[in-house]
Amino acid sequence: MGHTLEVRAEARTYPIHIEGGVRHRVGSLVNASVPGHSRVLIAADEHAASHYLEDIAASFAERPDIYIIPSGEESKSQEEYFRLLTAALEAGLDRKSVICALGGGVTGDLAGFAAATFMRGISFVQIPTTLLAHDSSVGGKTGINHAAGKNLIGSFHAPSAVIYDPETFETLPERELRSGFAEVIKHAWISGDSWFSWLDQFVPSLTKFPKSKMEELLSASIQVKARIVEEDEREKGKRAFLNFGHTLGHALESAAGYGRFTHGEAVAVGMLFAAELSRNILKADLPIHELKQMLTRLGYTTEIDKHLRIDDLIRRMRIDKKAADGTLRFVLLHELGRPELCTVPEEEVRKLLEKEGLT
Amino acid sequence: MGHTLEVRAEARTYPIHIEGGVRHRVGSLVNASVPGHSRVLIAADEHAASHYLEDIAASFAERPDIYIIPSGEESKSQEEYFRLLTAALEAGLDRKSVICALGGGVTGDLAGFAAATFMRGISFVQIPTTLLAHDSSVGGKTGINHAAGKNLIGSFHAPSAVIYDPETFETLPERELRSGFAEVIKHAWISGDSWFSWLDQFVPSLTKFPKSKMEELLSASIQVKARIVEEDEREKGKRAFLNFGHTLGHALESAAGYGRFTHGEAVAVGMLFAAELSRNILKADLPIHELKQMLTRLGYTTEIDKHLRIDDLIRRMRIDKKAADGTLRFVLLHELGRPELCTVPEEEVRKLLEKEGLT
Repeated sequence: MGHTLEVRAEARTYPIHIEGGVRHRVGSLVNASVPGHSRVLIAADEHAASHYLEDIAASFAERPDIYIIPSGEESKSQEEYFRLLTAALEAGLDRKSVICALGGGVTGDLAGFAAATFMRGISFVQIPTTLLAHDSSVGGKTGINHAAGKNLIGSFHAPSAVIYDPETFETLPERELRSGFAEVIKHAWISGDSWFSWLDQFVPSLTKFPKSKMEELLSASIQVKARIVEEDEREKGKRAFLNFGHTLGHALESAAGYGRFTHGEAVAVGMLFAAELSRNILKADLPIHELKQMLTRLGYTTEIDKHLRIDDLIRRMRIDKKAADGTLRFVLLHELGRPELCTVPEEEVRKLLEKEGLT
Repeated sequence: MGHTLEVRAEARTYPIHIEGGVRHRVGSLVNASVPGHSRVLIAADEHAASHYLEDIAASFAERPDIYIIPSGEESKSQEEYFRLLTAALEAGLDRKSVICALGGGVTGDLAGFAAATFMRGISFVQIPTTLLAHDSSVGGKTGINHAAGKNLIGSFHAPSAVIYDPETFETLPERELRSGFAEVIKHAWISGDSWFSWLDQFVPSLTKFPKSKMEELLSASIQVKARIVEEDEREKGKRAFLNFGHTLGHALESAAGYGRFTHGEAVAVGMLFAAELSRNILKADLPIHELKQMLTRLGYTTEIDKHLRIDDLIRRMRIDKKAADGTLRFVLLHELGRPELCTVPEEEVRKLLEKEGLT
């Protein structure tokens, strides 16, 4: 069965294969998407590697080289980036080689940036193993973190293929599923209300979600992202809509220290915040109550940590990559499916943070 | 007077302004090429900065931020790259900012790579101050070195403008002029014989070259490069012709230790070597004698350092970025203006190196 989508990027059109068990066919799919390639290096998250690396390596006619990446956001560092490049050189990769990323968003971002900058860019294949990576593996953003903020160093480098096996979710902790599911809800909110209703109906809890629906869910959520990045790969316009919930979300992640919140937990709070801002500023009539109910049912925190300081959060939001000239910018919604990128006056943000009980 | 050329790159078409004194108009030319930009950071080579930074900074309505790069190839390091990115973040650059590179090839490659990867790519302006940089400032290649070889890490990132003031050559040592002039000769050899004759006629020595001819020389040499990179920006075909003399050249540079030879000195030896290979393999009738005479007259070494080892040079040529699957690849000439990228059997290379007296 399975679903195959196509994404038209500037540099190439690439397929997204979504299918339970597709990990056993990675070798032939890489050959189909990168004909005539030379050596293959699999850059694998250590946890994903322990479960799935053998299946994938065995699917290649010639055994690929392997580089293991320690799990966690700390691996999106300059040191790990250069270690990976050095490993690629030591493995004898050349300009016709392929780097495959096996793991979640950290692995994809890091290995993608290495592929983007190895000998000025070589082929790159995403093999996501988390729900969250359904978002990051599509659209060609790659990068690493800087002490001053997340993803401040990176480039656009479209993959040659995305090979997505939802059977790999079976080894994910619930917290990881929750992190990824926030992006599914985001895609539903920015694309329209029917999809949000579908989620409400079919996702009573993250652990009871019927497996048979997972390919459908991934395909629908990825389509939202794919259609947007096709229209605006380099984020000059509507790609910014994908940042719904992310202005405050990123600030929460960095203020609390990476790892305290998962990305999705921070984005969930950020979406509620952006929804309230939309009501206050655009007078939008949004199903905020239903969103909060769904988030609560699925085990998200819906309140901002009272230890955080308003001035610190605002400072962090000002240096967000999406900011321009230090203004505060949020994706707000006029209604489900009708987002707009807005410059928001600081007093509106401050007022809402104070209402949350912050000082 | 001055010359303005245009280069059509994938991402944009950009102007190359060549004119004595144009450094006093950098501010308005940057505004014209990057309308609506926010902060400007000038990344300047320390020597170039000591002579020209004030002229350039004064040409902007608002004083730009400055970052000084230590002179020398050692600055194309991962450490210096991250220092520059940190400086850009500390200066408050955002996605609409511009990085200007003031200096030679090292500065342009390093600052260009920083611009390519700062927040996934911001605008970049080249302000070359060496003759050698007439080559590297056009075509969008950026990058840094790795212990395993030069330029192994980098990306393609076309500049928004190249602003070239040949008055800045007045503070260049003769050895620097010599390094750059090798690329002028290379452009002449791969483009046809009339241009090589022009050089023979007008360049009796590097110090006596008439200033009035410099804009013409730069414009002609840059045109050769520009037309090639327009046809093949990402080096899938004829851009490789620009590597005439570089297969052995790069190996000499790295084997002798960077700094022992200038880039152009190594390329000069590499061109003679490739010319001899062309004669041996393609039976080409080339003006090798005239080339050697010109190189000698202009003060180049034309022999390979006897201390170097054949096996070491061959190993280095095999890991050149242009190599594929460890073969030895050279740009050979059928005649002046008719280059071809050839896979050369190791015994041919070895034979010629032995003839040079190496073991």
